[in-house]
Amino acid sequence: MASQTAQIRDLTDVTAALTDAFGDRLSTAESIRDHHGHGEGWFASNPPDMVLFARSTEEVAQAMRICAAHALPVIPYGTGTSLEGHINAVKGGLSIDLSQMDAILEVNGEDLDCRVQAGVTREQLNDYLRDTGLFFPIDPGANASLGGMTATRASGTNAVRYGTMRENVLGLTVVTAEGRIIRTGGRARKSAAGYDLTRLFVGSEGTLGIVTEIQLRLYGIPESITSAVCQYPDLESAVNTVILAIQSGIPVARIELLDAVQMKACIQYSNLEGYEEKPTLFFEFHGTTAGAEEQAEQVRAISDEFGGSAFAWTAQVEDRNRLWKARHNAYFAAKALDPTKSALTTDVCVPISRLAECILETKQDADAEGLTAPIVGHVGDGNFHMLLLFDADDRAAQARVHDLVGRLNDRAITMGGTCTGEHGIGMGKIKYLEREHGEAVELMRTLKTAFDPQGILNPGKIIS
Amino acid sequence: MASQTAQIRDLTDVTAALTDAFGDRLSTAESIRDHHGHGEGWFASNPPDMVLFARSTEEVAQAMRICAAHALPVIPYGTGTSLEGHINAVKGGLSIDLSQMDAILEVNGEDLDCRVQAGVTREQLNDYLRDTGLFFPIDPGANASLGGMTATRASGTNAVRYGTMRENVLGLTVVTAEGRIIRTGGRARKSAAGYDLTRLFVGSEGTLGIVTEIQLRLYGIPESITSAVCQYPDLESAVNTVILAIQSGIPVARIELLDAVQMKACIQYSNLEGYEEKPTLFFEFHGTTAGAEEQAEQVRAISDEFGGSAFAWTAQVEDRNRLWKARHNAYFAAKALDPTKSALTTDVCVPISRLAECILETKQDADAEGLTAPIVGHVGDGNFHMLLLFDADDRAAQARVHDLVGRLNDRAITMGGTCTGEHGIGMGKIKYLEREHGEAVELMRTLKTAFDPQGILNPGKIIS
Repeated sequence: MASQTAQIRDLTDVTAALTDAFGDRLSTAESIRDHHGHGEGWFASNPPDMVLFARSTEEVAQAMRICAAHALPVIPYGTGTSLEGHINAVKGGLSIDLSQMDAILEVNGEDLDCRVQAGVTREQLNDYLRDTGLFFPIDPGANASLGGMTATRASGTNAVRYGTMRENVLGLTVVTAEGRIIRTGGRARKSAAGYDLTRLFVGSEGTLGIVTEIQLRLYGIPESITSAVCQYPDLESAVNTVILAIQSGIPVARIELLDAVQMKACIQYSNLEGYEEKPTLFFEFHGTTAGAEEQAEQVRAISDEFGGSAFAWTAQVEDRNRLWKARHNAYFAAKALDPTKSALTTDVCVPISRLAECILETKQDADAEGLTAPIVGHVGDGNFHMLLLFDADDRAAQARVHDLVGRLNDRAITMGGTCTGEHGIGMGKIKYLEREHGEAVELMRTLKTAFDPQGILNPGKIIS
Repeated sequence: MASQTAQIRDLTDVTAALTDAFGDRLSTAESIRDHHGHGEGWFASNPPDMVLFARSTEEVAQAMRICAAHALPVIPYGTGTSLEGHINAVKGGLSIDLSQMDAILEVNGEDLDCRVQAGVTREQLNDYLRDTGLFFPIDPGANASLGGMTATRASGTNAVRYGTMRENVLGLTVVTAEGRIIRTGGRARKSAAGYDLTRLFVGSEGTLGIVTEIQLRLYGIPESITSAVCQYPDLESAVNTVILAIQSGIPVARIELLDAVQMKACIQYSNLEGYEEKPTLFFEFHGTTAGAEEQAEQVRAISDEFGGSAFAWTAQVEDRNRLWKARHNAYFAAKALDPTKSALTTDVCVPISRLAECILETKQDADAEGLTAPIVGHVGDGNFHMLLLFDADDRAAQARVHDLVGRLNDRAITMGGTCTGEHGIGMGKIKYLEREHGEAVELMRTLKTAFDPQGILNPGKIIS
């Protein structure tokens, strides 16, 4: 029905108005439309009717006003790396590609903040910052745009120490559904001035407004960065190590869990020699030289209590990079377990005390279904990802995979957790949002209607 | 006009309905009404028509439904310690006193979180937690209720390390304007599931809904807590010490600035011997024994660079308590500089690079007006408070004080800061909110209208 709506809409006037305004930066080429119709998730493409390559906040606002006048849906596009169908044009419309808005507008070293356009990617920002002694820590794996990371409330491996986009966005420039430009938040570290519109737009997935500029927190690059790897007899021992480390207030920068299947995949794919196919924790410690060593020593002592293997640790940048590259390639390593299969990746987040239980029940569930399902987790936050390998031509297998994901979401929600720690709702998890938040979803709907009465901002996402 | 509205409203039916429901826990006694008509700020009392002492979320919802049916304003009340007129019943109505909702509902030690009713105070929570090895760090000075702290986005002395209520509230139970009960957020450390209603209610000052329960983050009590005091030849040197410490990533738990006038007040009031009347920093370091010492040592080295005095530091709990008690009593110490005068306290927050400039210009302004105006600051965040002493009977002096506050707010906004770091907007800073956020205030108004179409939730606050 959605694509029908798109097809029967008469686009003559709105296309003319957009072409008048933007010339050949408005494209209706099929390849470009198709490229903008899907992310990296398991969803088929829903191409938009048109794609605009915008160059400024003012242009986005102008495009938005034209689309509002013609009730045409607008979908913001960053790098296309989202996983839950966030950018699919399920009702057609205009995809606004922000990748050309890639200017780093200001870096305030003394205040540890910067302002970027939405199309700047996290790697671009960190390359730019390299000589300043500062860095931006949020790392969801993909080299996503900071606009997209803001819109999906991204986090990743070192959120346990540095927080998520929620904690690291200080302020925003946003284009509203009517095409007005507003600025939220500011450069102050904290403020008690009115409603927290900044946090409201963070994670709103383009359904309340289009983020065009972001003021971000930055951090000094730590004097010392060390890594460690430790293997455990079972998942509970690994998770209990993490619980005690967190509870002891040890400010670990990253704690990543790889289950035995994922370790097998990484050993094969990334030639990780000397490791066994066992539940494994990858740690990273940031601090002064003495401080990072003390953290590592404290974690080692805890790890020993839970039967962890000898603590293999390194301050060598090459060794560290090799280790974290293997972690970053976990997705490809897992897919390589069976290259003939398709992959679906999903994430949930639970209170850490329930993490071992949640993972174990989920693994039993996958085993019972005969599915290969490696798990990696940002375990300091209680967040884990499961990759499910399945035969894309086998409809029954696909259905079993989706049922399994459903049970995983319900399990996480029942345990006091959430149906997504960092991938977002998009079109993939709308029904789980309802299960998780119940009546609060009504209030989200009220909010959506108030901000976007025509329902033209990324329709079909978050709110059904 | 506001109080007129209250007077001409016929309260017979709504009073009968509330009395039916709540019996003698509904009070119309003048002393109780007056007590609930003002906080600790400089505003005259606006007593509500009635006060309800609620005992559960369901009771708050029931009262809200009755008030909604009669379009009667509702003002939530915690401990009455707010500073910007948040609880004044400017349009009359029902004050819902939540102080009897003082149950600590759950403490999840492994997950470092707890759930409390809104009337629990921060000291009550920390007393309760004492034997668990956990604590809740947010400390705005007053022994405020956690509901009130949530509603005003409170922070205080150790926000520089632990964040504000924004970062430390995981989820909420909220009664909406129609009297529905919703739950936002959850126990997961992070979530990308839908709009961040939790952060929307944090800081909404009772104007979007009534917070009745709060899920909070907790922290392990650090192994070592040490304090230090250092005095500087001038304000810039003190502030530059802080900038470099923050930029170096030293995780200082508290950094408080007291200007020379405030130090004079504290030396007199709290018998702080051995200190001079100079700009002074109070530090606190949390960590392992070695870690806290290393932090202190790093800060000492930076402080030396900027001409700081010999670093007087202590790990003795008695010495620490004496020091921080003096800091907590800074308000009373400042008032004691001239007991015949009234005091107005205000706060702003700026990017830390502008802090020295903002404080110095403001002090010059106060000097030019002949006003005694001691300053204390949560300087790691760029947040500072100024206390202005003035003769309450002198209308011209009062006007000068308010003009000075206006210039301070404008100065902070112009410097990229905010008109309030932690006191909130209430009725006192509405016009500055407009100056700070411009068009975004229109969106706040849209939001307010969507959530509270009758305008009965704490009217006259945040949004005019």
